[in-house]
Amino acid sequence: MKYPQPQFVTGLKCLICSREYPADNRFTCTDCGIQGILDVQYDYDAIRSNPKSEIRNPKSFDHWRYRELLPVSPELPLPHLHVGWTPVYDVPRLAKHIGITKLFLKDDGRNPTNSFKDRASSVGVMKAIEFGFNEIACASTGNAASSLAGLSAAVGLKSYIFVPKRAPEPKLTQLLIFGATVLRVNGTYEQAFDLCGEACEKFGWYNRSSGINPYLVEGKKTAGLEIAEQMKDNLPDWVVVSVGDGCTIGGIGKGLQEMKKLGFIDRVPKLLGVQAEGAKPIYNAFYSGKDLIPSDTNTIADSIAVGTPRNWRRAIQQVRLSQGEMITVSDEEILEAMRLTARLGGVFGEPAGVAGAAGLHKALQKGIVKPNESALVVITGNGLKDIQSAKRATGEVLNVEPNLKSVEEKF
Amino acid sequence: MKYPQPQFVTGLKCLICSREYPADNRFTCTDCGIQGILDVQYDYDAIRSNPKSEIRNPKSFDHWRYRELLPVSPELPLPHLHVGWTPVYDVPRLAKHIGITKLFLKDDGRNPTNSFKDRASSVGVMKAIEFGFNEIACASTGNAASSLAGLSAAVGLKSYIFVPKRAPEPKLTQLLIFGATVLRVNGTYEQAFDLCGEACEKFGWYNRSSGINPYLVEGKKTAGLEIAEQMKDNLPDWVVVSVGDGCTIGGIGKGLQEMKKLGFIDRVPKLLGVQAEGAKPIYNAFYSGKDLIPSDTNTIADSIAVGTPRNWRRAIQQVRLSQGEMITVSDEEILEAMRLTARLGGVFGEPAGVAGAAGLHKALQKGIVKPNESALVVITGNGLKDIQSAKRATGEVLNVEPNLKSVEEKF
Repeated sequence: MKYPQPQFVTGLKCLICSREYPADNRFTCTDCGIQGILDVQYDYDAIRSNPKSEIRNPKSFDHWRYRELLPVSPELPLPHLHVGWTPVYDVPRLAKHIGITKLFLKDDGRNPTNSFKDRASSVGVMKAIEFGFNEIACASTGNAASSLAGLSAAVGLKSYIFVPKRAPEPKLTQLLIFGATVLRVNGTYEQAFDLCGEACEKFGWYNRSSGINPYLVEGKKTAGLEIAEQMKDNLPDWVVVSVGDGCTIGGIGKGLQEMKKLGFIDRVPKLLGVQAEGAKPIYNAFYSGKDLIPSDTNTIADSIAVGTPRNWRRAIQQVRLSQGEMITVSDEEILEAMRLTARLGGVFGEPAGVAGAAGLHKALQKGIVKPNESALVVITGNGLKDIQSAKRATGEVLNVEPNLKSVEEKF
Repeated sequence: MKYPQPQFVTGLKCLICSREYPADNRFTCTDCGIQGILDVQYDYDAIRSNPKSEIRNPKSFDHWRYRELLPVSPELPLPHLHVGWTPVYDVPRLAKHIGITKLFLKDDGRNPTNSFKDRASSVGVMKAIEFGFNEIACASTGNAASSLAGLSAAVGLKSYIFVPKRAPEPKLTQLLIFGATVLRVNGTYEQAFDLCGEACEKFGWYNRSSGINPYLVEGKKTAGLEIAEQMKDNLPDWVVVSVGDGCTIGGIGKGLQEMKKLGFIDRVPKLLGVQAEGAKPIYNAFYSGKDLIPSDTNTIADSIAVGTPRNWRRAIQQVRLSQGEMITVSDEEILEAMRLTARLGGVFGEPAGVAGAAGLHKALQKGIVKPNESALVVITGNGLKDIQSAKRATGEVLNVEPNLKSVEEKF
């Protein structure tokens, strides 16, 4: 079955050399190689003047309300799972504790497979179907994988997930329950990533890797579109995002810029990008002004433990464009943020999910963010994804005998 | 601080002897004792003729859109967490596989702490504040506990959770991260339950136990209200719910009946109540017509493993009123349902969460539900809550070497 082209997409453009390509099934720039990430281009004038536009009068309460700004054929049936349009919470007790006037949490752990990655995967499975694939693959042990497995199950695609040898059992379970074929590679994550690419070419599978697939980051962009729409009467000074491979903050930045282009908001909040101290190659490149140098990774926040981030240029471009900053946080600061967002915000996030909250806390202490400013932190994943780390953040249970006297003795 | 009474509540009424009480801070009927569960009464005529009614023109996309039908003071600030208004998915591939014309899943695993119980806890914390309590307690190892811990954190109440000795560590972690004080009782669940009640009296804590607290089930009712509103143009023949202590199906039935009273729907779907074969005292009482006999429990579906259900009368009354039926399912059938709802419906539920789907499958095989009928299954909890059980439902990973030849050999 042939689907018509996405309505407002005009092509792809290399983030390094600006060479343009048609919006077809290709990955990186021919001239710049694997580093030449392609960015989807739109005709914003046409979107602005579209008489049938639904962007200002949307019907759906998920991220497909922005379909005109997504690279998906208008005739393709959408996945039934509700992705995006996640709630934004005003959390005054947490704000007061960390010393900021106004603080909001956007809980992306409430997506269908409980992470931000569903935004990208939902676009990925649509592109696979549009391009005529029946199978889709990625290399990951984390949220990208479980998200791809869930969205593939929802639309009836067969999914193949390549995981490195040290992948934890609980995360494999979520993949298997959705019916994914899980290939455990006797090697490192890089080897799994490369093998996935080779297998996609060999077997004719669609490659979901959000590092190199130009369409995936468009799904991530919807969080930025939503923040602009949900907060347009109360736009925060800062939007705070944890940073791993750079796609998430790059996508959110793009979404916010688009909403400014379309007149929803008249300024773009400053982006605060937060990396773990044990995995901070983008932070280093941002402040050195030089090309990225891959690093080792050593952090509890596995979803942002990326030593060779593929989308670092996009991340840095967007943070600069917003007049933003970057910061790093220790594992201890992440564990403290996990406690604080749960106890004072009512949101239980995984380590990478709350790293943004830790970064904001530190940025306030360092004077990067001022106490009289306002901020929105994106919580990117649910704490149930990594209960082992959460255990490190909690206190102990009190053991009592089954009588009141024993309880009284504890207080 | 004093809050005005809930606007449309007229009192409490015993489900056994019909004796009426004012809607104050009391639990069960004076005459009937612990068995005398009280039901909240409303003035439906006043709701129907309320000129300021928001029920037909709601502003909030969570379950507080039904505030007029909830026992909560109109002036009380609501918790910021978005509870309820969970998505309903049309799942034709799953429908076809189990042999029914039309099938919908309502995914209540997407609530803030990932289970249906948030509906009850959100009302519980409101009543605690309304009655002037600063502390709230319950006895549970499961979703009621994590839900209470999360909602208490959100509104700033201190929570105390009594758990039996054999409570699993991962579930304790979710409680501790939200800042609950967790008291592990060296004894059984029944002992923890009794001790919780005593401690509430002694220390002046509000008792959230949904088995005996008349207000909690009102929160559960909102799922029924939502089903009526979301499905009013496509009302299913059956609504399928897993049954533990009886509050959930009792609440959903009450919600559906109320929406019929208010004219949203012109009939109430038949309720299909599903118990585990290893914990089926309500099923037994339903078909024997006699009083409930407590049973042992032995099932993978821990959230419905209730040997002494406190709300069995309400459950049976509502199933009868709807002309419904009950059925039991084995652990193997539950594990199969876990695979099917994930792979063909894109929804990963915990064992008790998908027990309804297992029951519908079996009811179709037995001819209780007809292939040309339609059904909606409530998925009551997210599969990440119990990854150990999910492991029992999945297949194995494929081990490969980091080269294409090794992958090719697997297919």
